[in-house]
Amino acid sequence: MPATAAHVVLVWMALAAQALPAVAADEALPAASNVAGAQRPAIHSDGRIIFELDAPQANSVQVAGGDGLGNGPFSLKKAAGGTWSVTTPAAVPGFHYYWFVVDGAAVNDPGSETYFGYGKETSGIEVPEPGADYYAIADVPHGEVRARWYHSLVTGQWRRALVYTPPGYEANSAVRYPVLILQHGAGENETGWTRQGRAQFILDNLIAAERAKPMIVVMDCGYAERPGTHIPRFGARVAPQEVHAAFQAFEDVVVRDLIPTIDSSYRTIPDRDHRAMAGLSMGGMQSLFIALHHLDKFAYIGSFSGPFIAGINTGAQGEGAGAAPRFDARTAYDGAFADPAAFNERVKLLWLGAGTAEPQQMRAGISNAVQALQAAGIRLVNFSSPGTAHEWQTWRRDLNDFAPRLFR
Amino acid sequence: MPATAAHVVLVWMALAAQALPAVAADEALPAASNVAGAQRPAIHSDGRIIFELDAPQANSVQVAGGDGLGNGPFSLKKAAGGTWSVTTPAAVPGFHYYWFVVDGAAVNDPGSETYFGYGKETSGIEVPEPGADYYAIADVPHGEVRARWYHSLVTGQWRRALVYTPPGYEANSAVRYPVLILQHGAGENETGWTRQGRAQFILDNLIAAERAKPMIVVMDCGYAERPGTHIPRFGARVAPQEVHAAFQAFEDVVVRDLIPTIDSSYRTIPDRDHRAMAGLSMGGMQSLFIALHHLDKFAYIGSFSGPFIAGINTGAQGEGAGAAPRFDARTAYDGAFADPAAFNERVKLLWLGAGTAEPQQMRAGISNAVQALQAAGIRLVNFSSPGTAHEWQTWRRDLNDFAPRLFR
Repeated sequence: MPATAAHVVLVWMALAAQALPAVAADEALPAASNVAGAQRPAIHSDGRIIFELDAPQANSVQVAGGDGLGNGPFSLKKAAGGTWSVTTPAAVPGFHYYWFVVDGAAVNDPGSETYFGYGKETSGIEVPEPGADYYAIADVPHGEVRARWYHSLVTGQWRRALVYTPPGYEANSAVRYPVLILQHGAGENETGWTRQGRAQFILDNLIAAERAKPMIVVMDCGYAERPGTHIPRFGARVAPQEVHAAFQAFEDVVVRDLIPTIDSSYRTIPDRDHRAMAGLSMGGMQSLFIALHHLDKFAYIGSFSGPFIAGINTGAQGEGAGAAPRFDARTAYDGAFADPAAFNERVKLLWLGAGTAEPQQMRAGISNAVQALQAAGIRLVNFSSPGTAHEWQTWRRDLNDFAPRLFR
Repeated sequence: MPATAAHVVLVWMALAAQALPAVAADEALPAASNVAGAQRPAIHSDGRIIFELDAPQANSVQVAGGDGLGNGPFSLKKAAGGTWSVTTPAAVPGFHYYWFVVDGAAVNDPGSETYFGYGKETSGIEVPEPGADYYAIADVPHGEVRARWYHSLVTGQWRRALVYTPPGYEANSAVRYPVLILQHGAGENETGWTRQGRAQFILDNLIAAERAKPMIVVMDCGYAERPGTHIPRFGARVAPQEVHAAFQAFEDVVVRDLIPTIDSSYRTIPDRDHRAMAGLSMGGMQSLFIALHHLDKFAYIGSFSGPFIAGINTGAQGEGAGAAPRFDARTAYDGAFADPAAFNERVKLLWLGAGTAEPQQMRAGISNAVQALQAAGIRLVNFSSPGTAHEWQTWRRDLNDFAPRLFR
């Protein structure tokens, strides 16, 4: 912090909240995703959002963001004092990433907490969903979220997993618990499910209502570099074989590093009947890829908005770009579904879902897979989140439907 | 994430690392504080830092930051492609907050992780200190850092503490541990000591070397709003009585909410001989304020770069602004030091420290207090961090000296 003597006096006097002057005479409330005390962004009860940025010398300021924010980018207007602002149309409820574009540079909003997405720390806004309290922190017993560092044999690097232990884990020292491995999407990291997804509160609430079994939830970072290799950068167009290699590196981390670390560090029930894997988007693809190749280790599998792509995970080849890929139940995932009766006997839950406002190609890919699997006699749960896009509100709903079905 | 069909294909293909083209032919290495894969900022072996930002339409870009970064702000120059860059003079080793100023707006660097400081999420850069490995993650047993939510009777709100449990805590289920409450500075929050301070690795390393006793470390957010009150905004000039009221609210949280929560949630040794409190800057002031008013609860006290200010915590009144305040050992902290023999009998450690490059007023204030206390016969440890300012490298060294002295 700056070294002037005057500042020293201020430093200790200062406290963290960035309270701005009280909001004008409207009912907009500061977003729950703001840093403590920040009054902007603020959300009207109908979902319209007031964004604001101090940038006296800027020539243009826009705000842009995730699907649910609307058809941006939106241009802010400059007031006399140099503060830019805009009120955007009503946003879809849920969590949306966003950013300002100041004279062409994409930057964060100092009023927002940051959330890891798009391969970097990004601003985010939480738009309340009326009546939805399943992801709120409530007056129920709470689990913990633990940062666990472990050394990877696969990568030669230290890694960090976040581990939710359920309420009572500390007190009930003789009880052992089943494990859900729960993965983020592309551009995100192991913090996504607790910061954006509020998975810990969803689980706390489900467990308190006795709708879900108490379980340990493990959230790892879904990237892994073998020695001498590098992770493709976020947003790069990479060949299917590179995706395959990246998934295999993470598969090795899960099987060789993560599961042994968790089973030796926590009071787990270390068998396939008490282990699940699920994830969103890229994490859904990885969950299918890893669990279907290791059915000796997993009995419950979930893919939340996990795309099916020709040449990667459909068992089909050669569709044109942009077409909804066919799904071949006999050959997908190296024949994991080839014997439907054996599959249904072995896999206690296969769960596939998407939001109804997701892009057509995503929905069609998942729908084609669901139809092909059902036609082949594979038992599965197919879930639809009404009105939500490729965003966290879809995945919160997914977890809220998925978790109660586990370990029954 | 954007909804175009093309993007859907990219989303899953994309992975998180923001790898830029390989660095030019110099030895500068990406900072450890960067987001995974980001090549900028990068640090030369002599401590010079290359900062870079893509902002094709900006008219001016500067970089500014904490004390150790040098005498900034520094102006970046624009290259043909619209990328701005600068190489700054050699920085002091350690962690420095920084930010870009793009056409007058202070914004974060997308290449950096964010760290809560100045009341908002801020970029930070980790400049290595040659030979200093006490805060590195090493091949030793690691503790966990647990996020613990608790409801405050004092504020009526939910709060989050971060709790370090030492290696072996999970396995040695019959062992109970002493507790250190460790607080951040003004404008920071409960994440500071693990993200910026690397306290978990300092403790892991000290415990592995048997230099410190295994202990639980509790890091809470040092702000508390009683119902109907508001935290003053960061950087505001507030009256001494407002500081006092804010400290009292946090004191109540510590005594009425935090200690009972920790003692009922973890295997602590719940007595004063096994409880310490320390903090940096504002957190050092709070540690003295709280522990000296509750010597029935604390036997070990540390203040890292905690200012002494006339009218707040010196026992003296009325010095002019900017002067180094006198310290009156008889009256400071409501007479906590009035009976030195009794104090020395009761308090097992009083630890006061600062960096030699901190502002003169800070050093003089601490030095005056140390001299007055020693003259009065109070036993204390006075620590100096060579060459470091009001920054995290000072406080890492402080913790590395302080923790081994606890619970002996």
